[in-house]
Amino acid sequence: MTDKGAQTHAVDNLAEPFDAVDIIRVKRDKGVLSPDQIDWTIDAYTRGAIADEQMAALNMAILLNGMNRTEIARWTAAMIASGERMDFSSLRRPDGGLKYTSDKHSTGGVGDKITLPLAPLVAVFGVAVPQLSGRGLGHTGGTLDKLESIPGWRASLSNDEILAQLQDVGAVICAAGAGLAPADKKLYALRDVTGTVEAIPLIASSIMSKKIAEGTGSLVLDVKVGSGAFMKDEARARELAETMVALGKDAGVNTVALLTNMDTPLGLTAGNAIEVEESLEVLAGGGPGDVVELTVRLAEEMLACAGVTDADPAAALKDGRAMDVWNRMIEAQGGDPKAKLPAARESEVVYAPADGVLVELDALAVGVAAWRLGAGRARKEDAVQAGAGVRMHAKPGALVRAGEPLMTLLTDTPERFARAKEALEHAVVIAPEGSRPAQRLIIDRIA
Amino acid sequence: MTDKGAQTHAVDNLAEPFDAVDIIRVKRDKGVLSPDQIDWTIDAYTRGAIADEQMAALNMAILLNGMNRTEIARWTAAMIASGERMDFSSLRRPDGGLKYTSDKHSTGGVGDKITLPLAPLVAVFGVAVPQLSGRGLGHTGGTLDKLESIPGWRASLSNDEILAQLQDVGAVICAAGAGLAPADKKLYALRDVTGTVEAIPLIASSIMSKKIAEGTGSLVLDVKVGSGAFMKDEARARELAETMVALGKDAGVNTVALLTNMDTPLGLTAGNAIEVEESLEVLAGGGPGDVVELTVRLAEEMLACAGVTDADPAAALKDGRAMDVWNRMIEAQGGDPKAKLPAARESEVVYAPADGVLVELDALAVGVAAWRLGAGRARKEDAVQAGAGVRMHAKPGALVRAGEPLMTLLTDTPERFARAKEALEHAVVIAPEGSRPAQRLIIDRIA
Repeated sequence: MTDKGAQTHAVDNLAEPFDAVDIIRVKRDKGVLSPDQIDWTIDAYTRGAIADEQMAALNMAILLNGMNRTEIARWTAAMIASGERMDFSSLRRPDGGLKYTSDKHSTGGVGDKITLPLAPLVAVFGVAVPQLSGRGLGHTGGTLDKLESIPGWRASLSNDEILAQLQDVGAVICAAGAGLAPADKKLYALRDVTGTVEAIPLIASSIMSKKIAEGTGSLVLDVKVGSGAFMKDEARARELAETMVALGKDAGVNTVALLTNMDTPLGLTAGNAIEVEESLEVLAGGGPGDVVELTVRLAEEMLACAGVTDADPAAALKDGRAMDVWNRMIEAQGGDPKAKLPAARESEVVYAPADGVLVELDALAVGVAAWRLGAGRARKEDAVQAGAGVRMHAKPGALVRAGEPLMTLLTDTPERFARAKEALEHAVVIAPEGSRPAQRLIIDRIA
Repeated sequence: MTDKGAQTHAVDNLAEPFDAVDIIRVKRDKGVLSPDQIDWTIDAYTRGAIADEQMAALNMAILLNGMNRTEIARWTAAMIASGERMDFSSLRRPDGGLKYTSDKHSTGGVGDKITLPLAPLVAVFGVAVPQLSGRGLGHTGGTLDKLESIPGWRASLSNDEILAQLQDVGAVICAAGAGLAPADKKLYALRDVTGTVEAIPLIASSIMSKKIAEGTGSLVLDVKVGSGAFMKDEARARELAETMVALGKDAGVNTVALLTNMDTPLGLTAGNAIEVEESLEVLAGGGPGDVVELTVRLAEEMLACAGVTDADPAAALKDGRAMDVWNRMIEAQGGDPKAKLPAARESEVVYAPADGVLVELDALAVGVAAWRLGAGRARKEDAVQAGAGVRMHAKPGALVRAGEPLMTLLTDTPERFARAKEALEHAVVIAPEGSRPAQRLIIDRIA
C-alpha cells in the first residue's frame, strides 16, 4: 500500500466536478488553475468538501509557486461570491445625488491608529467612510480593540445601522459582518496556523475580497514596509500593492496604494486606550507629526478618489470639524466621547542606556512588547487589556541622555513586564550626536 | 485581524518545545530542520499536537523545497522510533548459526507479482524472507490482495507466528502489523489526500522506516521507472534509489537497488487470482520471460546480500524446490495451495486494431483498467474482486494481426467494462512489421 496511491484520486469521484488532489497537483507542478477549478475550490472548501489539510497543502503550493493575475482575480471573485455584498447606492448627498464612499485599508503596523482620526476627517467633506475593521491578532493592534476602550462603544452594527450612520454621520468604524466573504474567514484562520499567511496572492485576495464585497466606491491602501510590517522588504510590499490595485480596478473600485514605512511605530503610543488618546490629540489639531502627516495624506488620497480635490484636511483637524464628526460617530455607536478612558494599573519605565541620537526604535519589538503587556491577543478568544501598551517618550531623530525615560510600559498584570522587556532588548539604537536616522514615512504611491 | 497575524505563533506556546508554524516556516523558507525539531515533529504529529493541516503544509514545503540527507535520515529514525521494532536474531540455521534475513521492496508496478515466486525461491537457499506487505491502493496491485484470492489464506500473523514460520518454512508474506512505524501510517494517509505522495524524502523515509523497523538484515529495492510507476522519469527514480540505499546502509541494513522498467506491465496478467496463477507457472518452471528474469535477478541480489553467492535460483524454479517452499508457505497461513482459484463471471475481449508489431502496451492504462474492473480499490475500505483484471495475449515485440485478441478484460460486474475500455483507449501502439519496441527490463543497479 505504501507510496503506491498516485492515481487514486483522479478517478471515481462522481459527486464533484473536480478532485481536490488534482487541484493541488496543478499548483504543486507550477500549472495554472482554470476559472472553474478556482470557483469549485473556494465553494467546496467553504462547504467542507475540501478538507483543511487539502487546502493547507494547496496554500503552501500557492505560496511557493505563486498564482498569475488572472488566477488571483478569479480567486478573489470566488471569495466574494461565497457571501453577501453590501450596497451603498441608497446613500444621498444633500443635493440628492449619490453620496460617494471611500475606504482605507492598512496591512497592519505598530501604533497604527490612523483609521480613528481619518474616518471622521474624510466625512467632513461629504464623502462617506464605511470602515469595516477587524480585531488585532499578534503584534499589530486591532482598530476595534482600540475603540472598545471607549466606555459604551459597540463594534457590531446591523447593515441597516451602518447605512443609517453613513447617511447621518458620514463615517462608521465597525466590525465586518460574518456575511462578507465567509470563505476568507475560514481560509484566513487556516493560513494563520499553517505558515501560509505570507503568500502575496492569498493576502491580496483576502483583503480585496472583503473590500469589494463591502461595496466601497473607492479604496486607499496603506501597504506597510519594514520590521513591524508583514512585508519586511519593499519589493514584496510593492508586488502586494500592485496586485491589490489591479484587483480593485478590475472590480470597478477606484484603488490607490501608498507604500509607507513601518520600521518604527507610528506616533508615540502602541496599545488601545492610549492610541485613542493620541487620536484625540490629532483630532484636536495636535498630536505627533508622523500621525498627522499620514492622516492628512491618506485623507487627500481618499478624497481625490472620490472626486473631491479642493478639500483642506489639515485645516479640518485644526478647526475642530473632524472632532465634531468623531464625537457624533462615537455617540451613534453608544460610546461616550467625553468619558475618561481606562488606564493601566501598573507601569514601568525603560531608560535610555546612553547619550546620543535615537536612530532606531524597532517597530516589531515595540509591537511584541505591547502585545505581551496585554494590549493584543495570542488567540482569537483572548480578551485584551484596554490600558495596556507602550508609551514612547522619544522617536528616531531625538537627542536623548543616559538615564532619561525612553518608554513607559503599561499593564494591569505586572508579571508581564519581564517578557515585554525581553522583547525590547535590541529595540533601541543610540548613535553619536550628529547622526540622523533614515526616515521616510511615505515611500511611494501606486495607482 | 486579516493578514496581520504573522507573529502570533512564535511566542507563548509553553507546553511544547517547538511550534508547528515555526517548523513549517523553516522548510517553507528553504531552511534545514534540526534533529530536535524533526524528532518533535514526528512525535507531536503522532500524538496529535501537530494538526493534519499543519503537517500537510509542511509536507508540501518538503515536496517543493526538499530535505537534505541528514534531515531525511533523522526523519526516518524518528518514524522508526514512533513504534516497535521486530527482532529476527532468534532465527537459527540447521548448524545453529544465525539465520540471515533478506527482504525485497518494490515501489509498485502493474502486474508486479514478483514477490510471490521470489520469497519461496530465496528461502530455498536457507535465507529467511520476512516479506511484510501492504494492500493495493490505486492502479498498482497489492501483494496481500493477490494472495487473498487463495481460499483459506490469511494475511494477519502475530509476531510469534511470523518468527515460527520464518524458522520452519523460511518465507512469510503477511500484513505489516500496526506497531511498525505508526507515524508513517498516519503520514501516508495524509499525503495520499493532499497531493504530497510524490516527495522523494517522504517516499524514501516511508519505505525505509518500515523496512528498518521490520529488522531485516538486508534489503533489495526494486525501484520502478515508467508510465505505470510512481516515478515517470529515470533521474527521479535514481535519486529515490540512492536516497533509500544511503538510508539503509546508515541503519546497518545491507541495501541494494535495481532500477527496472515499468512502461509495460510485468508478465501477461494484472489482477489478483490471475497473477497468482501466473506466479504458479513461474514456480512450475514456466511463465513469462520478463517475470522469470526479474524474479531470478532479484533472488540473486537478495542471496548475494545475505552472503550466498553459489546459488542457482533459475534451477530451483525448474526443479520444483521453490514450489515446495511455496506450498508449505501457503499452508502455514491456512491456504490450500491445490484449491481452484476464483474466476471472474464475465469477460470481454479487446482485439488488435491493425496488423504489425505491438510496440507499446501502456502499463498505466492497463493498471487503471484492471483497477476499474474491480481488481483494486479507490478507498482503503473497499473490497477487491479476486477474479477481476486484465489478461494480456501479446506483449511488446509480438507480431499481431488485426482482429486477433489482444487482451481479455475480467470482472464480476459487467457495467465496469465501459470505463475500463476508456482507460485502454490509447494504451496500444502497433507499428509496421520490422519495428522493435524499446525494451530493457533492468535499467541499472545502485549499491
